[in-house]
Amino acid sequence: MTTLFIFPGACSFAAHVVIHELQLPISVERVTFGDPDSPYRQINPTGRVPALLLDNKTLLTENTAILPYLADLKPGTELFAPAGSVERAQIQGWLGYVATEVHVAAFRPINRPERYSADEAAFPGIRERALQQLANALKPIEAHLAQADYLIGNRFTVADAYLGVFLGWSARVGVLGDFPALQAALGRFRARESVVQTLAAEGLA
Amino acid sequence: MTTLFIFPGACSFAAHVVIHELQLPISVERVTFGDPDSPYRQINPTGRVPALLLDNKTLLTENTAILPYLADLKPGTELFAPAGSVERAQIQGWLGYVATEVHVAAFRPINRPERYSADEAAFPGIRERALQQLANALKPIEAHLAQADYLIGNRFTVADAYLGVFLGWSARVGVLGDFPALQAALGRFRARESVVQTLAAEGLA
Repeated sequence: MTTLFIFPGACSFAAHVVIHELQLPISVERVTFGDPDSPYRQINPTGRVPALLLDNKTLLTENTAILPYLADLKPGTELFAPAGSVERAQIQGWLGYVATEVHVAAFRPINRPERYSADEAAFPGIRERALQQLANALKPIEAHLAQADYLIGNRFTVADAYLGVFLGWSARVGVLGDFPALQAALGRFRARESVVQTLAAEGLA
Repeated sequence: MTTLFIFPGACSFAAHVVIHELQLPISVERVTFGDPDSPYRQINPTGRVPALLLDNKTLLTENTAILPYLADLKPGTELFAPAGSVERAQIQGWLGYVATEVHVAAFRPINRPERYSADEAAFPGIRERALQQLANALKPIEAHLAQADYLIGNRFTVADAYLGVFLGWSARVGVLGDFPALQAALGRFRARESVVQTLAAEGLA
């Protein structure tokens, strides 16, 4: 059976939501974050989540690959779009933007300033600048969601599932105050049945 | 006509290579990097490249979306794989890894330390740490390419086109010395006809 490896509330939450959205027959396994002795390291040496272990033992990584792969397991649903379509490229584009500009460019230095300097005295300045970068990265999403309830095609897609995770993280670090459309989007996300189910399944409800 | 916007030698190089690989009827337009008065800002307010302007005026952004979209314009070539296939997810996974861990996590702080601190005195330390992160990010790619000439499927795919750009950048910042498989991969990339054509077209040959 295919297995998704997650850590509660991590960016693997999006894939977990998609599994609930599409009621996919995929086992979800919680792993210990940052434990070099975890048996999970035998499967994924980096220890990172999400990772999707297929029946043939192939391991898929990266949200920008896993979310489309999960959606393609049930072709034709509202969550994604056909190969070759402009909509699919737009959804993939939002996944890419959130992965690079929101997750890695902003939350990485917020959560792991030690990856940006060997000097602990520099960490508060790195975190402060990263919070500004986060606000900058959220601006085009706010502008977009001020005009529409969803990122693409007036429906909830894998891009919204992915964005939802980082809206939650953004609220937690206190940057959603200036972004009413993002606050509303987070409210819609949390009210969604698949998200309620995922929060419960990850022990976060 | 569809237009790809590039800046010579930027990460838009990968999409330009794919256009040559597949001989796609796409116009390539060079824009001025970092010029807020450029007419390109009317098309793409961020000023970033690559961006693909479609006939219907939709603008696609993000390499992880543009490279798959370009490959899907000629379905069935060796550059990509069918929707729903594991290979497609693996290729998309490498695109995602290179975009996040190599480009944004490592080259962003190397090239733009000002985005990680308001304190100029911190910039050299940020660059030094980012060069270490780059080496860490390249290790799994080195391990992989020590066993195979290409990232996936024993053939040149859009993932190799994308990686090739950052192998060139990595050589320039002096981190390829410890990575013989990556040096060999860069040699193969530069010898490829589509890459020779793209270097000439971007005025870099």
